[in-house]
Amino acid sequence: MNAIEQRLAAVRALMAEANYDALIVPRADEYLGEYIPPHNERLLWMSGFTGSAGLVIVLRDKAAIFVDGRYTVQVGLQVSQELFEFHHLLEEPHAQWMAGQLPNGARVAYDPRMHPLQWQRATEAILAKKSQVLVAETDNLIDRCWTDRPAARIDRALLLDQTYTGESSASKRARIAQDLVARGADAALIFAPDSVSWLLNIRGTDVPMLPLVQSFALLAADGSLSLFIEPGRVPQGLAGHVGEGLTVFGESEAEAILFTYKGKSVLADPATANAWTQLTLLAGGATLIAGSDPVALPKACKNQVEVAGARKAHIRDAVAEVKFLCWLDAEVNAGRLHNEAVLADKLLSFREVGEHFRGLSFDTISAAGSNAAMCHYNHQNGEPATLEMNSVYLLDSGAQYTDGTTDITRTIAIGDPGDGVRGMYTRVLKGHIALDGAKFPKGTTGSQLDVLARQFLWSDGFDYDHGTGHGVGSFLSVHEGPQSISKRPGGADLAVGMILSNEPGYYRDGCFGIRCENLLVVQAVEDSSHETPMMEFDVLTMVPFDNRLLDVSLLTAPELQWINRYHARVNKVLGALLRGAEKTWMERATAPLVA
Amino acid sequence: MNAIEQRLAAVRALMAEANYDALIVPRADEYLGEYIPPHNERLLWMSGFTGSAGLVIVLRDKAAIFVDGRYTVQVGLQVSQELFEFHHLLEEPHAQWMAGQLPNGARVAYDPRMHPLQWQRATEAILAKKSQVLVAETDNLIDRCWTDRPAARIDRALLLDQTYTGESSASKRARIAQDLVARGADAALIFAPDSVSWLLNIRGTDVPMLPLVQSFALLAADGSLSLFIEPGRVPQGLAGHVGEGLTVFGESEAEAILFTYKGKSVLADPATANAWTQLTLLAGGATLIAGSDPVALPKACKNQVEVAGARKAHIRDAVAEVKFLCWLDAEVNAGRLHNEAVLADKLLSFREVGEHFRGLSFDTISAAGSNAAMCHYNHQNGEPATLEMNSVYLLDSGAQYTDGTTDITRTIAIGDPGDGVRGMYTRVLKGHIALDGAKFPKGTTGSQLDVLARQFLWSDGFDYDHGTGHGVGSFLSVHEGPQSISKRPGGADLAVGMILSNEPGYYRDGCFGIRCENLLVVQAVEDSSHETPMMEFDVLTMVPFDNRLLDVSLLTAPELQWINRYHARVNKVLGALLRGAEKTWMERATAPLVA
Repeated sequence: MNAIEQRLAAVRALMAEANYDALIVPRADEYLGEYIPPHNERLLWMSGFTGSAGLVIVLRDKAAIFVDGRYTVQVGLQVSQELFEFHHLLEEPHAQWMAGQLPNGARVAYDPRMHPLQWQRATEAILAKKSQVLVAETDNLIDRCWTDRPAARIDRALLLDQTYTGESSASKRARIAQDLVARGADAALIFAPDSVSWLLNIRGTDVPMLPLVQSFALLAADGSLSLFIEPGRVPQGLAGHVGEGLTVFGESEAEAILFTYKGKSVLADPATANAWTQLTLLAGGATLIAGSDPVALPKACKNQVEVAGARKAHIRDAVAEVKFLCWLDAEVNAGRLHNEAVLADKLLSFREVGEHFRGLSFDTISAAGSNAAMCHYNHQNGEPATLEMNSVYLLDSGAQYTDGTTDITRTIAIGDPGDGVRGMYTRVLKGHIALDGAKFPKGTTGSQLDVLARQFLWSDGFDYDHGTGHGVGSFLSVHEGPQSISKRPGGADLAVGMILSNEPGYYRDGCFGIRCENLLVVQAVEDSSHETPMMEFDVLTMVPFDNRLLDVSLLTAPELQWINRYHARVNKVLGALLRGAEKTWMERATAPLVA
Repeated sequence: MNAIEQRLAAVRALMAEANYDALIVPRADEYLGEYIPPHNERLLWMSGFTGSAGLVIVLRDKAAIFVDGRYTVQVGLQVSQELFEFHHLLEEPHAQWMAGQLPNGARVAYDPRMHPLQWQRATEAILAKKSQVLVAETDNLIDRCWTDRPAARIDRALLLDQTYTGESSASKRARIAQDLVARGADAALIFAPDSVSWLLNIRGTDVPMLPLVQSFALLAADGSLSLFIEPGRVPQGLAGHVGEGLTVFGESEAEAILFTYKGKSVLADPATANAWTQLTLLAGGATLIAGSDPVALPKACKNQVEVAGARKAHIRDAVAEVKFLCWLDAEVNAGRLHNEAVLADKLLSFREVGEHFRGLSFDTISAAGSNAAMCHYNHQNGEPATLEMNSVYLLDSGAQYTDGTTDITRTIAIGDPGDGVRGMYTRVLKGHIALDGAKFPKGTTGSQLDVLARQFLWSDGFDYDHGTGHGVGSFLSVHEGPQSISKRPGGADLAVGMILSNEPGYYRDGCFGIRCENLLVVQAVEDSSHETPMMEFDVLTMVPFDNRLLDVSLLTAPELQWINRYHARVNKVLGALLRGAEKTWMERATAPLVA
C-alpha cells in the first residue's frame, strides 16, 4: 500500500467505527479562505492534489475528487485514478453525485468549521431526498489519522499605518455600523480574515502570500467589535491602534461568547461564513439575518490613498519584472535556457530588493512550453522544466508590498514560436484590449463585460476555461470579492476604486499556454458631454507586452494605437528608473508598432 | 371629479367597507400574459395608462403608479400627477414602497389570479416585517366598480397543421413527460396560454396580435393532459387533432379538479403561474415542485419546419415593408408628409395581402420626430403627429402569419436629419452589427452578449433603457422566454433554433428616437477547425437599413462589409419578388457603400 492507500484505509476504519457512509474533505480550513496553512492541508494529505480548489468524497468502497477546469490536467498527474474517480467541481455537483452513490438513510460526516452554512443547507436538502443525513463531526477524522501533522505557525500581526490605509478603523467601523442599522441587525459576523484585517488596519505575518490575520469578529451596530484570535497573533499596541470599542478573545472562548448573542439579530453571510459559527449562534438563541459580508464592498472600493499606494507598488513591481525580462532575453540570446525554478527565483531576486516588499502574493507560475497549458501550473510540484527554443514562456506572478498587491502575467517569446502561436497570442491580447477600453454605466457587473475579452477567441472557435478577472486587495488577498469578471452571472456592480485583473488566455493541451494580465482600477469617466455617467478602467500594471508575439495583420488600427499608447506610457513611467541595458531593452520593447 | 377620480373614490369606498388599507392593481389578468383583453384592462380603467407593463397601488389617501423606463415619458402624458405618484417599476420595489407608506398591521388586498405565486410570497414576506398582511380577494374590487365593463370575446381556437408545427402534440407531450419524470413530478401545471397552445398545436383567434388560446392545463407524467378552457373556445375536432390523453374541462371546474391532485407532486413555475392555481393545489393537498415551465424551452427551440416557416414569413413580411419604404420615400419626395396613423395603415395594407397573414403581432409603433423618443409610443393614444422634414421616423411593427411571427424596426431619414442624428444612428447600428456577428459557446446566455450591442453607445456616454433582444414565438407571442438579451443576468442559455430580436436603440427626450431591429435565429457554426463548438445567429429579417443615416467615417471596414453583405443578401432574396419602382428602390437602398 502506498501512503494515500494507507491514509484512505485509516480514514475508512474511523468511518466504520462511527457508522459513517461518507466523509467530505474540502480544500478548506475553519477560515474558509484561499490560503490553507500546511497543517490544514487535509485535502492534499488525503489525495496528493495540490491545487487551490477541490473536494474529496470518501465512501466505504470508493473515493472521488472534484476539481475545476484549471486543474483537469494537474489532477491526472497528482492523484491516483485507481483510488479516486475524477469529476468536474462545477459541472457535476458533488452532493448529487454522493447522494446517488449512497443508499437511502446513509450517514455523511462533515466538519462544520470547514464549510459555509449555505453548503451545509444545500447539501442537507439534497441528501434529505434519500433520507440521508449530514452529520456534523467536529472531531475531524482526517486530523485523527494524520499522525505527522505539522504544527501551526503563529506570528504576531502588524499594525498598518493610516498613511497606507487612508482611513482609521474607527471610521471604517462607524461607516459599516450604519449599514448594520439599515439592515436591521444588532451585530454582524465578520467572518473573512481579510475583512477583519481591513477593518482593524492590521495585517498578518504568519501566512505566506496572504497578509491577513487569521481571526474572525463580531461587529456591533454601535461600531464596537469582538475579535476572536489566537493570543500569539495579537500585536503590541493593538488597542491603541484600533481605537475604542475593541475586545479581544481567544478562539477557544468563541462558543461561550457566541452564546451571549441570545435574542440578538446577527447578520452573517451563509455563502462565506462557516456553518459552525452560525449554527452556534442559532443554538445560543440568536436570529440570523442572511446577507453579504458588510465589509466586502467597502474594502473592495479602494480609497484614494490605497489607489495611490497601488500605483506606487505597481511601478516598483514593474521595475523588477522589466529587469527580469531584459535579463531573460539576454540569457536566451546567449543560449542559456534556464529551468522554471531558476527563472522564478531570478524574478524574486529583482522583486525582493524593492521598497516595502513583503513577499510574493501567490506561488509564481513559471511555465515553460507545454506546462503553460495547465493554467495554474506549479513548477514546485515536480522536476522544473527547462525553456525550449521556439516556444512561449508564461510567467504569472505578483507580490505583496506594504502599499499594495500586484499580479501580472506576461507571455514571452523564446526564439520564434511560429505563426500559430502568434495568431492565438494576438487574439488573446485583442480581448485584453477590448476589456481594458470598456466604458460602462453604474449597475454594470463584470459578467456583463466578460464577452469583450472572449469575443475574438469565440469568433474562431476558441475559449479559455477560467474567469477573465478577479478582484485584488490592498496589501491583502490577491483574490478578493465581491467583484469579478467571468461568465458566471452576478458579482457586485463595478464601482469606483475597485481593482480587478484583466487576464484572458488560451491553452492548447500538451502544446502551449498564453495569458495576458494587467491589473486595472475602476474610475469615473470625466466627460461633461456624457448623458449617462460612465466608468472606465485605468491600468495599474506598467510592463510591456511582448510585441514579438503579435500578428499585426490581425489588429485593427485602434488596437494598434492602444498597444503603442500603453507602451509609451510604460516607457514614460519607468524610463527614469532604468539604466544601461535595461533602459535600452525598454526602449526596444516599447517601440511603436506600425501596421 | 373626472372619471379617474370617481373610480378612485368608488374603489376606496369598497376598500373602506372591507377594511383594506391598500389595493394592488397590476397590469395583468388571470393568465398573466402580455396581452390583456379590453374587459380585463383594470390598470387602464384605474389610471388611464395604456402601457404594456405597470402596477398601481391605491392607498386610502394616495395612489402610485409604477412603470419602467420605456414608459417614463408616456406615463406623464396619460396619468394625472395630482392623483398618482410616479415611480420606477424596476428601481423602486413597489412592495417596499407600500410597506413604508402603510402603518403596522395594515391590510393589503390583492387578487390571487392576477399575480404569480412568487410575487405573492415575496410581497407577503416584505409586508410581514411590519405585521402587514396580504389578503387574497377573489371578488375583484375593480370589477365591482367597473359598471360599463365590456364583455369578453370568445372565439373558437384553430387547429394548426403539422406542416406548420413540425411535431405532433403526442410527440411534444411524450417529450415533456420524460422531463417531468426526470424532475420527479407526477404532473406539471402548464400555465402559460402560449405553452398550452404550442403543446396542443392550436392557436387562438379571439385575442388580437396574440394567437394563443386563453387556457391552462395540467400535463401528467404519462403524457395525458387536462385542459381548462372556456367551452366557447373549443374547436371542432380538437380531440382527433391532439390525439389520445386529452380531457377538456371548463374553467369553472378548475377548483374541483385541482383538488383531485391530493398527494401528487405538481411542477409549477412560481414566477409565471398565478398564485390562485398553486394555492388551490396546496389547499387540496398537492405538493408543489417549484420549477420552470417545462414547455418553455422546447417551445423556444424551433424545429426545422418552424425555422423554415419563419424564413418564408419573413420574406413575405419584408416584401410588404420594402413596398412601404419605397412608397414612403416617394411621398416624402413629393412633399406629402403623412401622419403616423396613415403611415401605420399603409404598412398594414401592404402586409394584409400577403399569404397566411393573420394580423399584426403587436400595435405598430409609428413614431414621427420626437414621439420616437418614447420607446413604446402608440399614435392611437392621442392625435397622431405628422412627419417632419429633416428628422427620423421610427417604425416598429410585425405580423402574425400561419408559418411565423415577425418583428422589425427601421429608422428612416425624412429629409436630412443632420450629422448629430447620423452619429447616433451609426453607433446604434454598430452595436446591432456586433451582436449579429457574435459567435458563442454552449452555456452562453443573452445577458453575456448584451454589451456587444451597447459598447459603442457606452463609449461615448450614451445608453438605452430597454433590453436588447427578446425571444419570439412561432405564430405565437412576439415576446417569449426563456431566452433574452439584456443587462439583467440569467435567462436561458442560447440554443439552436431560438429566435431573438436584436434591437439596440437610442432615445433623446423631446428630440428623436432610433432603433435598429432584426430577428435572428440561433444556429450551430459548421466549422470543423473549431476546438470548441460555437453557435451564431442567422438573420431572418430581410429589409435594408437606411444607408442615408450612416456616418460612414464611424464604421470599421468589417462593419461596412457587414452592411454591404446584408444588403446584397436582401437584394438577392427579395429582388425577384419586386418590380418597377419598388425594384429600383431596392437596388438603390442596397447599393454597396464605399468607405
